[in-house]
Amino acid sequence: MPNVLYGQRLVDPINRSMDIVNVLLSGGVGSRLWPLSRKSCPKQYLPIFEGKSLFELSVERNEPIASHTIIVGNASTMHLAKQFIKSKSTSKVRFITESSPRNTAAAICLACLDLAPTDIVLVCPSDHMIGDSKAYLQAIHKAYQLACKEYIVTIGIAPNNPETGYGYIQYKGNDVLAFREKPSLENATHYLESGDFLWNAGIFCFQAGVFLKELESYEPEILTKTKQAWAAQEEGFIPVEYMDQIPSKSVDYAVMERSQRLKVVATEMGWSDLGSFDSMWDYQEKNQQAENVENSNFVISQSSKHIELIGVENLIVVETEDAILVVPRYQSQAVKDVYERLQNQNSQFV
Amino acid sequence: MPNVLYGQRLVDPINRSMDIVNVLLSGGVGSRLWPLSRKSCPKQYLPIFEGKSLFELSVERNEPIASHTIIVGNASTMHLAKQFIKSKSTSKVRFITESSPRNTAAAICLACLDLAPTDIVLVCPSDHMIGDSKAYLQAIHKAYQLACKEYIVTIGIAPNNPETGYGYIQYKGNDVLAFREKPSLENATHYLESGDFLWNAGIFCFQAGVFLKELESYEPEILTKTKQAWAAQEEGFIPVEYMDQIPSKSVDYAVMERSQRLKVVATEMGWSDLGSFDSMWDYQEKNQQAENVENSNFVISQSSKHIELIGVENLIVVETEDAILVVPRYQSQAVKDVYERLQNQNSQFV
Repeated sequence: MPNVLYGQRLVDPINRSMDIVNVLLSGGVGSRLWPLSRKSCPKQYLPIFEGKSLFELSVERNEPIASHTIIVGNASTMHLAKQFIKSKSTSKVRFITESSPRNTAAAICLACLDLAPTDIVLVCPSDHMIGDSKAYLQAIHKAYQLACKEYIVTIGIAPNNPETGYGYIQYKGNDVLAFREKPSLENATHYLESGDFLWNAGIFCFQAGVFLKELESYEPEILTKTKQAWAAQEEGFIPVEYMDQIPSKSVDYAVMERSQRLKVVATEMGWSDLGSFDSMWDYQEKNQQAENVENSNFVISQSSKHIELIGVENLIVVETEDAILVVPRYQSQAVKDVYERLQNQNSQFV
Repeated sequence: MPNVLYGQRLVDPINRSMDIVNVLLSGGVGSRLWPLSRKSCPKQYLPIFEGKSLFELSVERNEPIASHTIIVGNASTMHLAKQFIKSKSTSKVRFITESSPRNTAAAICLACLDLAPTDIVLVCPSDHMIGDSKAYLQAIHKAYQLACKEYIVTIGIAPNNPETGYGYIQYKGNDVLAFREKPSLENATHYLESGDFLWNAGIFCFQAGVFLKELESYEPEILTKTKQAWAAQEEGFIPVEYMDQIPSKSVDYAVMERSQRLKVVATEMGWSDLGSFDSMWDYQEKNQQAENVENSNFVISQSSKHIELIGVENLIVVETEDAILVVPRYQSQAVKDVYERLQNQNSQFV
């Protein structure tokens, strides 16, 4: 436990009620959910969970524990966030609008620059599903206590399958022993069986000043350039000439995998990144929601078309207003390639 | 060769130029092409062959050899036939409109009752494709000559694959040795290899009076009831109370498989019944038309939707304004079952 003042006052977790700033990262594209997810309406804004979007669910999930919310996202879709927030008529939300995407290290840094050093920050992706709110709040509470002690805390999810698309954290108690990037199936199976590994869910809790200090140590250029960008902001909007100067790096590479102050809180909380149609399918199966499962196929349609699948199984069929996707189960990661190809072609269907 | 007058004057093929009445059967549903083919617009009226329908192609194919045309079809779609005929501004067409479908024996009988006994009739389905017009005309010419001699002639197609969905004719020269209904794959393979079998294409040539005489011998009730129905016709429209009295039987069962006057003319003429998406796919491959083949899949779309198939092959995907069908190659016969199920459910998608 670091008991030395680390750039700012040590927060006393005992005498402080949980007081958190929720930093919601909403700049993602969700390209593996194409054609549902589009440039103009990325995954996190799709109202596909009983009429709610993952963004809405994320805001609502953190409302009971957050004193206020900072939404960091990009210029092309921020109106979707603002629209929802307006409908909630809450005033405790601020927006930081990036004119160009510079990955998560910069996004989190921008939010921290807007805060006092001892403010406790809860960074969340806005495009994940968390089924068990109680477990989530318990995990955040533990993370909060560690953050008060100047740790940088990541929430680790106990894996239930040998997923090869996620990063893994080797851990013991609250200590992080190592990071493992997207493993082979063999390694993932070993990680799962050992019980010593957690999925890196991209949910972090720390004091703003602690994060900035760590960023200064490991990626001083990101900090400097982001400071300059923040200084140029107008009502939360960062001009593109400043954004473009910031090195684009994920917070995992920039800070998490290097920091000596990292702790982890392990939890099972019905988490899914819903990052692909496979994980959407898995999520529905696990939660015994069969809304899109027809026979042995997964069908999502945004039209009222009558869809008949004959003699096929384990097939994913997605239909939107202007596109149709057909892909077998366990291959939906490849949807990303389709999105990238379309993007390179300047396709209207991106 | 029958040289006895068979109910009417023997027609001399030498001194008679080819003078044919084309009877076009247009009452089919084409249910195996659902959702393209619909109750309101069956397969033969779909403008999917360079903007033309199979019905249009059938009319045009027989125009050079037919003195006039009788179109027999059902009340719900006859306007589609009339619409096209009107656009051709030809007056040599008559329409016989069935208020309820009673299969091909009745349909052909109705047309024959509208003709003189020695009129030579060429009966054609209106929903088949014939790629080689020259071979077709040659075959019809041979059939015509045999029809003049009071034979009932069927056009037989030299098979090029062991199709199990067709009827087969065992033949020698112009003689029909036997009929074989839809065979097993084993039998179909044997038929193909032996070279002694032809596909029954449902194209017939005979004198109207000869056909009626044969019908009288084998299915007197069909003849009697159809005569009564024909007597009640008004401008070619047969009232439903009369139609419903006619036994529903295919001309194959009613006459062809029983008649001693049957002859066959063998031909290869790029024939396809285009009865299923498999046969559409085969047809395009054989004719080196790749318009609907994308990678190893067959995609028909009536919208401008962007369609992406990933990690699948030998898949048929059909999209219309209100329906989507996905079925593997070689299984598209099962589409008929979907159509029947929808029909039984009184579905709007039939």
